[in-house]
Amino acid sequence: MEYLPLDSVRLSEDESAVVIIDQTLLPERLEYKILQTAEQIYDAIKRLCVRGAPAIGICAGYAMYVLARQITAGGYEFYSELEKYGEYLCSSRPTAVNLGAAVNKMLCAAKAAANKPKSEIIDILRRTAIKIHEDDIQMCRAISEYGLTLVKDGDGILTHCNAGPLATSRYGTGLGALILGSERGYTFRAYCDETRPLLQGARLTAFELKNAGVDVTLICDNMASLVMKQGLINAVFVGCDRVAANGDTANKIGTSGAAILARHYNIPFYVFCPSSTVDFDCKSGADIPIEYRDPEEIRSMFFAKPQAPEVKCLNPAFDVTDAELITAIVTEKGICCPPYDSSLREVLGK
Amino acid sequence: MEYLPLDSVRLSEDESAVVIIDQTLLPERLEYKILQTAEQIYDAIKRLCVRGAPAIGICAGYAMYVLARQITAGGYEFYSELEKYGEYLCSSRPTAVNLGAAVNKMLCAAKAAANKPKSEIIDILRRTAIKIHEDDIQMCRAISEYGLTLVKDGDGILTHCNAGPLATSRYGTGLGALILGSERGYTFRAYCDETRPLLQGARLTAFELKNAGVDVTLICDNMASLVMKQGLINAVFVGCDRVAANGDTANKIGTSGAAILARHYNIPFYVFCPSSTVDFDCKSGADIPIEYRDPEEIRSMFFAKPQAPEVKCLNPAFDVTDAELITAIVTEKGICCPPYDSSLREVLGK
Repeated sequence: MEYLPLDSVRLSEDESAVVIIDQTLLPERLEYKILQTAEQIYDAIKRLCVRGAPAIGICAGYAMYVLARQITAGGYEFYSELEKYGEYLCSSRPTAVNLGAAVNKMLCAAKAAANKPKSEIIDILRRTAIKIHEDDIQMCRAISEYGLTLVKDGDGILTHCNAGPLATSRYGTGLGALILGSERGYTFRAYCDETRPLLQGARLTAFELKNAGVDVTLICDNMASLVMKQGLINAVFVGCDRVAANGDTANKIGTSGAAILARHYNIPFYVFCPSSTVDFDCKSGADIPIEYRDPEEIRSMFFAKPQAPEVKCLNPAFDVTDAELITAIVTEKGICCPPYDSSLREVLGK
Repeated sequence: MEYLPLDSVRLSEDESAVVIIDQTLLPERLEYKILQTAEQIYDAIKRLCVRGAPAIGICAGYAMYVLARQITAGGYEFYSELEKYGEYLCSSRPTAVNLGAAVNKMLCAAKAAANKPKSEIIDILRRTAIKIHEDDIQMCRAISEYGLTLVKDGDGILTHCNAGPLATSRYGTGLGALILGSERGYTFRAYCDETRPLLQGARLTAFELKNAGVDVTLICDNMASLVMKQGLINAVFVGCDRVAANGDTANKIGTSGAAILARHYNIPFYVFCPSSTVDFDCKSGADIPIEYRDPEEIRSMFFAKPQAPEVKCLNPAFDVTDAELITAIVTEKGICCPPYDSSLREVLGK
């Protein structure tokens, strides 16, 4: 059985549109959406049809190229219209850093080529967008190659939340080693935490790993201790949102609990991330603010009817895993081991 | 504000019916069901309108009394009809130990009084049923009193699953100290794990504690590590299904994980149970079989539509918490501390 890679974002063959997987329909069905107008792209980002920081960046790059081709004006007016498109797209999710960064990269490329013929500017935009995408694929692939050195054929890997191809490109970060390994004939056994309250593990990770031909078993978050005790888990693989200079790592709520269980059962716990996730201005996890979200995500979201009475709910979106619980932090530049104060700077060349 | 105790099971005022809280409607609405016929009682037990081992036992005791009053025959025929009712009720949930035990107790009482007038036999049945109920209230109260000595006013208590009045009588076991303390003016802060996949914490524990006037906050299971790290938790309180002779304790899936987190954060972890839960024939947790349940409980139950693709799900209903992680086991006969091999036998007088 052949498994097709999941391209969460790509350029259509005639290059007139961005093609995305509509992630709001997963895991029920895999459906592609063809985005041609600025409004369609704005809407797809806003409604989380495309989600995951790198995927949004890739989408924005292609979107700027597709929209540039639609501009009839030339010269300064061309740039001015492109800038307006950029502003409009950025307003779809104002806090998405990769969105703004990709739009900015495209605008800079256009500006730098301002005195060239329009067809040439458009070609430069095309190559810039493709490079944003290819750089991400390269980065994910490098992380995955490093990750693959940490496990062996037949291993059981516990995952938490989602750090796969849908959110990035091709391999993903936390799931990359599993998918790359699967391509090479390794037979891993993946155990996915469902990841309450938003169920990213159940909805996305289980789907992605199954799609890549990985043997996958879904569990509730509170079952991790049992599968570890039963000897089914050889390593824990997670992505992350932010790494402090000392190695403390913010990731989806529940990550720190999984790390504590792994330590208890003597199972290595690995964090996977692009080197850009390491924030050297942030000394430790104490400096990372925790986002609290709508209690209805716990009480009623996804449910046919609310499953809890009208009580207070605490809904932290992230937690911080102490550096001392992390066996290694894996980036596209290499594997960082404790003590992280020195290894992060060394491996990342800072 | 006055809080009424939740009587999950009681006798109607005219003693012609068993009155139960229909737990299938919680937490949406608190509705009482009046059960007069054998069919109504059978149905209520089978459909889990009444659930929790002790509550089912209490219900069965009252049911046998209510049905005995309906029997027109006397003498041997009376006993024979009562026996048929007992068999019928027991077939509603064949594995419920307390159901069979309560029915048996009622039949024994009737048999022992066989040569007495029918009115007297019925009075004996009445007193036997009330005693089953009162014994449970006494037991829960004793457990709660012991539990209350382990915490202080203002403490934050983490709970997992459900061990409250709905499943037992009046105070419950694991929740007893919180409810009894609340009656006495203590202001505890309870944090309830929602307890996936069946959400007993969200649906029942949060409801019961709110109903008893306890300050309650609902969290997802994977948030326990964060609230512990933030210093919000002073103790963990759980019920249990079976305690082995060495103190290893089987309880709802996720309990062992909570115990490991508590140990990591230096938070005491207490197990609450009737002394009858301790199984001296069971040497250790290794001898306790784990029940695996329907994967659809994870994939689709409660959800408006399935939230995971068609993948394998592991759905263990219980896990075993190693004795070394348990600070104390609290029974109606006293508090057992490590080493449990000796303390359980000593406190329970075995």
